[in-house]
Amino acid sequence: MSRFLSARFAGLEAYTPGEQPQDMQYVKLNTNESPYPPSPEVFARINGDEIGKLQLYPDPEGKILRQKLADLYGVMAENIFLSNGSDDILNFAFMAFCDETHGAMFPEISYGFYSVYADLYGVQAKQVPLQADFTISAADYCKNEAMVVIANPNAPTGLELPQNDIEKIIQSNPNHVVIIDEAYIDFGGTSCVDLIHKYDNLLVVQTFSKSRSMAGARLGFAIASKGIIEDLNKIKYSTNPYNINRITLAAGEAAVDSNDYYMENCKKIAATRERTTKELREIGFMVLDSVANFIFAKSDAISGADLYAGLKKKGVLVRYFGKEKIKDFVRITIGTDEQMDVLLEKTKELLAEGGKA
Amino acid sequence: MSRFLSARFAGLEAYTPGEQPQDMQYVKLNTNESPYPPSPEVFARINGDEIGKLQLYPDPEGKILRQKLADLYGVMAENIFLSNGSDDILNFAFMAFCDETHGAMFPEISYGFYSVYADLYGVQAKQVPLQADFTISAADYCKNEAMVVIANPNAPTGLELPQNDIEKIIQSNPNHVVIIDEAYIDFGGTSCVDLIHKYDNLLVVQTFSKSRSMAGARLGFAIASKGIIEDLNKIKYSTNPYNINRITLAAGEAAVDSNDYYMENCKKIAATRERTTKELREIGFMVLDSVANFIFAKSDAISGADLYAGLKKKGVLVRYFGKEKIKDFVRITIGTDEQMDVLLEKTKELLAEGGKA
Repeated sequence: MSRFLSARFAGLEAYTPGEQPQDMQYVKLNTNESPYPPSPEVFARINGDEIGKLQLYPDPEGKILRQKLADLYGVMAENIFLSNGSDDILNFAFMAFCDETHGAMFPEISYGFYSVYADLYGVQAKQVPLQADFTISAADYCKNEAMVVIANPNAPTGLELPQNDIEKIIQSNPNHVVIIDEAYIDFGGTSCVDLIHKYDNLLVVQTFSKSRSMAGARLGFAIASKGIIEDLNKIKYSTNPYNINRITLAAGEAAVDSNDYYMENCKKIAATRERTTKELREIGFMVLDSVANFIFAKSDAISGADLYAGLKKKGVLVRYFGKEKIKDFVRITIGTDEQMDVLLEKTKELLAEGGKA
Repeated sequence: MSRFLSARFAGLEAYTPGEQPQDMQYVKLNTNESPYPPSPEVFARINGDEIGKLQLYPDPEGKILRQKLADLYGVMAENIFLSNGSDDILNFAFMAFCDETHGAMFPEISYGFYSVYADLYGVQAKQVPLQADFTISAADYCKNEAMVVIANPNAPTGLELPQNDIEKIIQSNPNHVVIIDEAYIDFGGTSCVDLIHKYDNLLVVQTFSKSRSMAGARLGFAIASKGIIEDLNKIKYSTNPYNINRITLAAGEAAVDSNDYYMENCKKIAATRERTTKELREIGFMVLDSVANFIFAKSDAISGADLYAGLKKKGVLVRYFGKEKIKDFVRITIGTDEQMDVLLEKTKELLAEGGKA
């Protein structure tokens, strides 16, 4: 920290992303990436012609991609906002819709970045405990005076909040934005995008990082009423208008054009998830019923910390949060069947070794 | 605007980027892009192998690229900050180093985004008039109680502030960050990067957008004392840690590896600038002495607005600001010699037609 940093950030704790070793030596199941590469259409699209235009600014409005997404989701282009990953959108939303008098509320156990945004902007945050079974109780979020943020399915639990519960929350907070963070929706959940036609306070956030194999390209999008999209654009054009590069825009267009490829991958990942869940349960793990591309699991035979450390030693990276209430768990990204076989094998080895790392 | 937008943004006016027509039908001299494509090394680097890793997150620290830039500029990797274009860095700096009690000061005529950042964060901004000859007087920026932001060379004038004047400003503001925005430094100016070894309050901002033909890739970097870089990272990791995508990181590495190619392009652009300046002066234009990849020019025979509109009708896009004190001028990006020939020809036609659009 320098002596120039504004005093308001003295206590700010930044988000800690999952480890990103660049040497590819691990079976990497720690940051919910897809194990499958981009579609052949994406490979074909990023060619010499595209690279030969890199000296020119991209279209800051991303018109072509916005129209393609609008067509895919049955909305208008004016209902689509594009940004540099979904974190970027969440950041803008906290900035736009919260302030000293308008707080935010979200589950106590959820995506860890929500509380960082609240701290960053000095926004009062109400963190609501989950139920004992790790589900979200919709009633907790009804009739509050704050922006609501719900990840659905929730992370790191993978559990889905039913559509009618989401609608209740949106309905009962008509004067505040309700953000439904659907980063993991394509792996088996039901999207609430259609509700934007009914409610002007709903902001649905999605990403190309997970189901569309583009974590490395940085592309997120939001779907909401025209007014909310205008507000997000106001913040974007007041911070960094060209925040999506040319090649990512082109890759995004090709990815939407080859949507079937990615939806097939999602089905494969869901099948692998079900199989892995079953096998972990067979060796004594408690595994939550995930509809995402990860599972949240614990065993009485080994602590979460030891499982994480033991697996890392054996070349498998999973995510461990070490946070109160979930410190027995690890979050395991669903990779290919072969990768999950390695995970299962190494986990069994650890249990046989007495559960110690 | 929605009814949910925080009241503090009700009057915010976002930045208006230059027009970015995507149909390539113009001789595009309006947003200071390089007319030359990326180096062969960049083309070679963005290959199937790179695209085949797009499902994985990029290295949020950009370690390899930071080390390459550190080697190029004779600093340590800890002195380098990478971000999603230099606008992103300026945004972070206004956020980190200004607040209700720490304002900002910058020239009244300069990059238009500085005042947007100040408005966005509710920071008091002192906008200092330029001298009558459009130069910056260093004395105006000495011994003030605010963060100082100077574009050098300044935009849209293209004029350079001498190194010893910059050092005076840094020296006389020891308790505030002094940002020197060197977006256009490679076209003939003298960088003050070396001064970071002497002053911990200096923040130099550069970009791959202009001299390195990568406006479409979105890559900016800053060079400063370790503490300032840590502060910028704190903001980055509290907003959007993965803000540079994989392909841009790879392209940036290849661009630094082929630095000579780009420095040759800069020399070509400087030669074209001198030739164009001379020819415009010969037909009666007043042209400031630019060391950037653009020139700022006006003529008594045609208004700035008419020149902009007339050239656009004839297929040449230049930038017109229409702002008090500079409304007689247009800013013309230096393209290839062939592009400048078209500009000169169309300008002469307009003058012959009586100067009206």
